[in-house]
Amino acid sequence: MMTQATPSYVPTELTVPRRYRDRAAYDKQAVHAVLDEALHCTIAFLRDGRPMNLPTLHARVGETVYVHGSTGGRFALLDGEPISISVTLLDALVLARSWMHHSLGYRSVVAIGEARVVQDEDERYAAMAALVDKLYLGRTADSRPPTAKELAATAIVALDLEAVSLKHRGDHVADDEADLEGSPYWAGSIAVRTVRGEAVPAPDLDPAVPLPAGLR
Amino acid sequence: MMTQATPSYVPTELTVPRRYRDRAAYDKQAVHAVLDEALHCTIAFLRDGRPMNLPTLHARVGETVYVHGSTGGRFALLDGEPISISVTLLDALVLARSWMHHSLGYRSVVAIGEARVVQDEDERYAAMAALVDKLYLGRTADSRPPTAKELAATAIVALDLEAVSLKHRGDHVADDEADLEGSPYWAGSIAVRTVRGEAVPAPDLDPAVPLPAGLR
Repeated sequence: MMTQATPSYVPTELTVPRRYRDRAAYDKQAVHAVLDEALHCTIAFLRDGRPMNLPTLHARVGETVYVHGSTGGRFALLDGEPISISVTLLDALVLARSWMHHSLGYRSVVAIGEARVVQDEDERYAAMAALVDKLYLGRTADSRPPTAKELAATAIVALDLEAVSLKHRGDHVADDEADLEGSPYWAGSIAVRTVRGEAVPAPDLDPAVPLPAGLR
Repeated sequence: MMTQATPSYVPTELTVPRRYRDRAAYDKQAVHAVLDEALHCTIAFLRDGRPMNLPTLHARVGETVYVHGSTGGRFALLDGEPISISVTLLDALVLARSWMHHSLGYRSVVAIGEARVVQDEDERYAAMAALVDKLYLGRTADSRPPTAKELAATAIVALDLEAVSLKHRGDHVADDEADLEGSPYWAGSIAVRTVRGEAVPAPDLDPAVPLPAGLR
């Protein structure tokens, strides 16, 4: 049987790290998985020539990442501006024998490019739906869609995935050879996970409204 | 009894948000608590005039946040450069009746300023210790301190906390009045937490080495 090459992003000068190049990857499926698992991103942009970064909810649709904000907010001003969006999933604390080799186990994605403030109404609606469905798949059907006025008050910012890289480090301890034999120091790892609790109804929720199937 | 004003950062044009100003705070203790609880930050900096951001471990000592990297890496080049460091603690998913009011509950800090690549050996050592103790308090005493060569290979980048703001949003649902009465949609919140698993020894750890008290 023929195996097909996995589609990958093309590494560029911007996305090849200076150090630990073996931790970098460009496989699209792997990049998508990290973007989709992360519940928030950090978006970096210029403000008077200075780099600023802010956390926000994001959602991926195909090869585009979307964030949103108010039309009166900062994101609405980003059309054509250079931005960088990064997400990080922390997986482990790595405790080495030496201070030097202490580390974090993680998966992270950085995407770089020009922001696009979305004008097309269909794309805007699809992006908003993706942002709502990020909370749990199917939430869009379990809540009230936006009115024309609400849509008009929302700025949607898109970043197309082109200059993108994934970095990952597992939970292995990477001490120097000289520290392995006869060291008095404990070494190992501690897994870190993000967990969701039970769905708690709003205090003013009509008790007759059932919990959506997607939350049961 | 007199109450004393809590020491706060002075809000500046850079740290007052355009929207949701009631979510912003400048209390130093609250800012420190968020920086200390977060296990990683995102650092934004300029690269050929473009904003870039990367995740990394950070630690706070007094009114300074430190990150570190190799002297051959990008962080070593940041002395005097404008940077922004942000941390985010995700606390909840907020499921509103309307798409529009879906949100995340979170606490985040953004600190802005000029990076300082630390030269002073005592400050460099103290920063490295803080970065190791970030994994658990006391880890510095449970692992091998750096040699002069290891210290020399490490770049420590400092950002003094001056232009700093905390943003927080709780887990309350903030639907419009018109959506409250007779809505068929479930509304509420889901708590999100970061949890640590058990300490797992490295496969090559000498079984005679006990688990440190700080991990028991």
